Amino acid sequence: MIKTAIVGASGYTGGELVRLLNDHPEVELIAATSRQYADMKVADVFPNLDPELKLKFTGTTDDIIDSQAEIVFCGLPHGVSMDIVPKLLDAGKKVIDLSADYRFHDRELYQKHYGDHSSPLFLKEAAYGLPELYRHEIRAARLVATPGCYPTSAILAMAPLMSKQLTKSVIIDSKSGTSGAGRGANQAMLYGEVSEDFRAYKIGSHRHTPEIVDQLSKIAERDIDVVFTPHLLPLTRGILSSCYFDLNGQVSTEEAYDLYQQHYANEPFIRVLEPGQFPRLASVQGTNICAIGLHMDEEKKRGIVISCIDNLVKGASGAAVQCFNILTGIDETLGLNRTPLFP
Amino acid sequence: MIKTAIVGASGYTGGELVRLLNDHPEVELIAATSRQYADMKVADVFPNLDPELKLKFTGTTDDIIDSQAEIVFCGLPHGVSMDIVPKLLDAGKKVIDLSADYRFHDRELYQKHYGDHSSPLFLKEAAYGLPELYRHEIRAARLVATPGCYPTSAILAMAPLMSKQLTKSVIIDSKSGTSGAGRGANQAMLYGEVSEDFRAYKIGSHRHTPEIVDQLSKIAERDIDVVFTPHLLPLTRGILSSCYFDLNGQVSTEEAYDLYQQHYANEPFIRVLEPGQFPRLASVQGTNICAIGLHMDEEKKRGIVISCIDNLVKGASGAAVQCFNILTGIDETLGLNRTPLFP
Amino acid sequence: MIKTAIVGASGYTGGELVRLLNDHPEVELIAATSRQYADMKVADVFPNLDPELKLKFTGTTDDIIDSQAEIVFCGLPHGVSMDIVPKLLDAGKKVIDLSADYRFHDRELYQKHYGDHSSPLFLKEAAYGLPELYRHEIRAARLVATPGCYPTSAILAMAPLMSKQLTKSVIIDSKSGTSGAGRGANQAMLYGEVSEDFRAYKIGSHRHTPEIVDQLSKIAERDIDVVFTPHLLPLTRGILSSCYFDLNGQVSTEEAYDLYQQHYANEPFIRVLEPGQFPRLASVQGTNICAIGLHMDEEKKRGIVISCIDNLVKGASGAAVQCFNILTGIDETLGLNRTPLFP
Amino acid sequence: MIKTAIVGASGYTGGELVRLLNDHPEVELIAATSRQYADMKVADVFPNLDPELKLKFTGTTDDIIDSQAEIVFCGLPHGVSMDIVPKLLDAGKKVIDLSADYRFHDRELYQKHYGDHSSPLFLKEAAYGLPELYRHEIRAARLVATPGCYPTSAILAMAPLMSKQLTKSVIIDSKSGTSGAGRGANQAMLYGEVSEDFRAYKIGSHRHTPEIVDQLSKIAERDIDVVFTPHLLPLTRGILSSCYFDLNGQVSTEEAYDLYQQHYANEPFIRVLEPGQFPRLASVQGTNICAIGLHMDEEKKRGIVISCIDNLVKGASGAAVQCFNILTGIDETLGLNRTPLFP
Repeated sequence: MIKTAIVGASGYTGGELVRLLNDHPEVELIAATSRQYADMKVADVFPNLDPELKLKFTGTTDDIIDSQAEIVFCGLPHGVSMDIVPKLLDAGKKVIDLSADYRFHDRELYQKHYGDHSSPLFLKEAAYGLPELYRHEIRAARLVATPGCYPTSAILAMAPLMSKQLTKSVIIDSKSGTSGAGRGANQAMLYGEVSEDFRAYKIGSHRHTPEIVDQLSKIAERDIDVVFTPHLLPLTRGILSSCYFDLNGQVSTEEAYDLYQQHYANEPFIRVLEPGQFPRLASVQGTNICAIGLHMDEEKKRGIVISCIDNLVKGASGAAVQCFNILTGIDETLGLNRTPLFP
Repeated sequence: MIKTAIVGASGYTGGELVRLLNDHPEVELIAATSRQYADMKVADVFPNLDPELKLKFTGTTDDIIDSQAEIVFCGLPHGVSMDIVPKLLDAGKKVIDLSADYRFHDRELYQKHYGDHSSPLFLKEAAYGLPELYRHEIRAARLVATPGCYPTSAILAMAPLMSKQLTKSVIIDSKSGTSGAGRGANQAMLYGEVSEDFRAYKIGSHRHTPEIVDQLSKIAERDIDVVFTPHLLPLTRGILSSCYFDLNGQVSTEEAYDLYQQHYANEPFIRVLEPGQFPRLASVQGTNICAIGLHMDEEKKRGIVISCIDNLVKGASGAAVQCFNILTGIDETLGLNRTPLFP
Repeated sequence: MIKTAIVGASGYTGGELVRLLNDHPEVELIAATSRQYADMKVADVFPNLDPELKLKFTGTTDDIIDSQAEIVFCGLPHGVSMDIVPKLLDAGKKVIDLSADYRFHDRELYQKHYGDHSSPLFLKEAAYGLPELYRHEIRAARLVATPGCYPTSAILAMAPLMSKQLTKSVIIDSKSGTSGAGRGANQAMLYGEVSEDFRAYKIGSHRHTPEIVDQLSKIAERDIDVVFTPHLLPLTRGILSSCYFDLNGQVSTEEAYDLYQQHYANEPFIRVLEPGQFPRLASVQGTNICAIGLHMDEEKKRGIVISCIDNLVKGASGAAVQCFNILTGIDETLGLNRTPLFP
Repeated sequence: MIKTAIVGASGYTGGELVRLLNDHPEVELIAATSRQYADMKVADVFPNLDPELKLKFTGTTDDIIDSQAEIVFCGLPHGVSMDIVPKLLDAGKKVIDLSADYRFHDRELYQKHYGDHSSPLFLKEAAYGLPELYRHEIRAARLVATPGCYPTSAILAMAPLMSKQLTKSVIIDSKSGTSGAGRGANQAMLYGEVSEDFRAYKIGSHRHTPEIVDQLSKIAERDIDVVFTPHLLPLTRGILSSCYFDLNGQVSTEEAYDLYQQHYANEPFIRVLEPGQFPRLASVQGTNICAIGLHMDEEKKRGIVISCIDNLVKGASGAAVQCFNILTGIDETLGLNRTPLFP
């Protein structure tokens, strides 16, 4: 059993980490912090947990630094993680950070979009926690930065085409459930403000755009142009991204399907759907799966790829557990392979 | 055109008042207050309003006191209304108060359940704003206190039986939409905490219980025993109350139906459904209607009555407008008779 | 009072017509047909209607042909309308048809996408029921064909840019509520199959694509290239279309805003939002409004326009009533100007 | 690995059985029947299943009779099960039947509420599949009849009080999600008919009433009087039952809590909440848990008990798997103990 801890466990991604680690056969979760809920039972904060679960929140990170945890998940907001993570690394822990603080290797890029960085020396060291792209880096890392939820959905949708340099720009029309906005009290996320409604937001200005550009450009080995528009769905979990692009040459749906199948042949969590089929959120909610459907217009040299993930699992806490499995050398799918509910 | 104003207009009941008064053919809404949104356009706070609507929130009640408004709707929370209402009355306004502050005639009863009262002299004077019971009092009143949303659903369901003294106790199992909890930021009312969930709350301790007891006891002219359990539905608008009771004698469903039909014969907003039919929230959302269905077990001398209202309309702002129509002597249904949406 | 009738009134658009005509101050609805519900009270089929409403469904169209209705709304499915509409016209009625049967002037285009047409002679005569484009034709028409719901959202979003020939292609990513699928029993539209889910469908093959192409090409006076992807939202009413396009030159958001403002200056139901604001479905549900927000990337010569409509109102029955108002020479907004609910 | 098969696997309870058996560590699911989907892959019918799952539906029960399955789950509707179950028993299979066909020991009772029975000889033999009451009978049975979903929620809520003869009647106000109505196409269960709506149905006439009466009377060893009212919630999974009763003597909440704790001390799936806490559906969805909260009014000698279950798990397929575990002598919780999702 590998001893783990969570710093910043009171939000939705924190709760999802507790759920996944709790059911994980090789993990012992020994501590979790929450300033807001210090000294409360974790099971009193998350109604899905068994009331018998004894774990209580601790209020200070020092308890984690001094703990026997080998690997620490960090669920703090960006701007806060950067102050805690170096201390955890100094204490000899390996860290999987779910914030934006170590997602860019380039300090200037980070500072342009998020503000000052207090521990920039670790930016270059951090592995970007998308195993489908950086499995080797993750395996060897002390610090893993899991991707943003929207970037995960977009990058996995476009990586095969980008790696073959079949396109150089993409329009990403993404739709996310409300859990992406977190568990903090927030008028805009009240039931009455979201149910039966639908809206776009942060058009042309969402901070996940530079992250998508950064990664797609690395894959394509040239500058990729991205238009990204997020929308808010009246549902709790999931991101569906519809990606539109022009192609450098004629590509049929069958050819694209073969390309994707080969590209993701050994990936346990990528599901490429047969031509004519498209993913729905109901198929991925509660799972670490990214499901992908595609349709090419061969004559007009363009296409659409649609991807679905659960933003709290593959888009956050499940990705973190997948990285944990890789880091620790155990089966990559452990604790991540149960069948979801339907309906 | 009758000049009106709203004190405390930034919540859901305030917004509903703006909507109703705005479409009302005999009303000019000249001012609305909100400390939180002072100087903002009302249409920037409520997305249903026409952006062309010029009205801005004012931050102080003094503007209302000095205004030409004849009738003022007060949408402040209980405990706050009691400080403002006397000033409005002193300034010669008539007031329709939507808080709990003037719903009890008995000061001790109020103080037992809500705490100290700063203007108890007005308690006896206030008319209880349920026209089906107190139309004459409302017509003559300077101050009307509209009922709580749950009490409205329960009292209208039980009044005919209580007035005939056919029962002396009732179990009221009520289910309400989330808008009853208001528009303030509130973790428990986030979309992700409510959607696909259902729960009871404040079992045995909800402050609407003494209000229901008070009114049913007045109707029955004896002490009525009430068990009241509220539940939270994953929907925005509406209260359905299922009321269970024993009967003093054998009453058939047909006889009960006749009793209800006669009792509510001249009521424009009460809809008694034929035997075998039961109301659903979809029929009353957005309307001032209270729909009632009933089923008696003649042999076992007991029955069930089910009522449906929209908590923001008949349960709050629509009731206030109905009282306004009565107070001002215009057609009681004015501004309250449009067909709701379906689906 | 103008006498009207509805042929095919048992679906959601039929029910919406009943609602709108019932509240319309200049309309008398004298008959409505439904084979499925023949001889039933209309109010027993639609739970929003007042049970006091006496109107019953008739099972045969002959009753309508022989009736005194001057104007007949036809809510039959495509392929069925084409057999009934000529008889109504022969009987001297004016017809507003909500099906796809008369939306194309070109018979071959219709037949390519929908199959044989039994009354092709009327194709050329029919006015396309989008008043913002064809108000004069509608005023003079015997037969009006209201647009598809998706085309309404797309055409109104793009018309100002297309009419100035500022772009020649567009990617339309549309998201619709479930009411667009009608009221027929249908496993895919069960609550448990839709709630908390989201999916794309008919990618590259939806029959509204040629309708959008046809109309945008007419506006631009050249062939317009359209990619159209519909998605199914877990909500009942509304379509939000996100439209992406390249521009022939540099256009700022302010300039585009001015263009739209001018283009729609006299339109009672088009709401162009100020730069930085974007529409949400909550603002248009239950209304005949089309709300439009826009954002241009001046440097990169491209943009996004987002439009919101209620698919059952501006996307179907409200558009039909607007055309009715134009046809009959009364105020175009009559019966269509009430404030919607929020929340 | 124990070989199992499912007869009638195309509905929601069938799909839930596939999900549970598929993840069960001691089960091999070798066949599943569906007339409607014969020869289709099971994973093409249920979007939550892994497309890699090879299992196809077979159209005939004969395949099951001739198969090596030791234990057969029967998910057919009542009236159909009674014709198939005897054949399966004759072929030496043990059968767990989810229909109503073997829930009553008394033939007349069955026939009064459901109609003729074609295999009444098996009525007496069948064990009622509620392990909390009949664990010994289930262990020894050839045929287990799992309870109705509403009865499960009601009986588990009331059994401790009834077994102590503390009350002799109960009012059960139950609220269920839509999945209880099955997956068949059905206008009343369309998203647009259910979302944002709430209604009671089958008041005084639901066929689960006699099942509740039958079981509670057995527990109390006298005739119990039951009022049962089902309601339809706008959500997919779960039943919350609010049970109201008078008590034969004064019982405090603490005393009742102790009684329940003791009664269910060794039950792995019953969760009795501490005084002051009440269950919500979010805590049990996707689990085999029945969570119970209670509140007594000692002075007035009455109380309320609230229970929550997932109607598809503890109310149907999970109960069937629990019975399977008991029947086969393996750990009763196997395949039924994962942490549910939140939010």
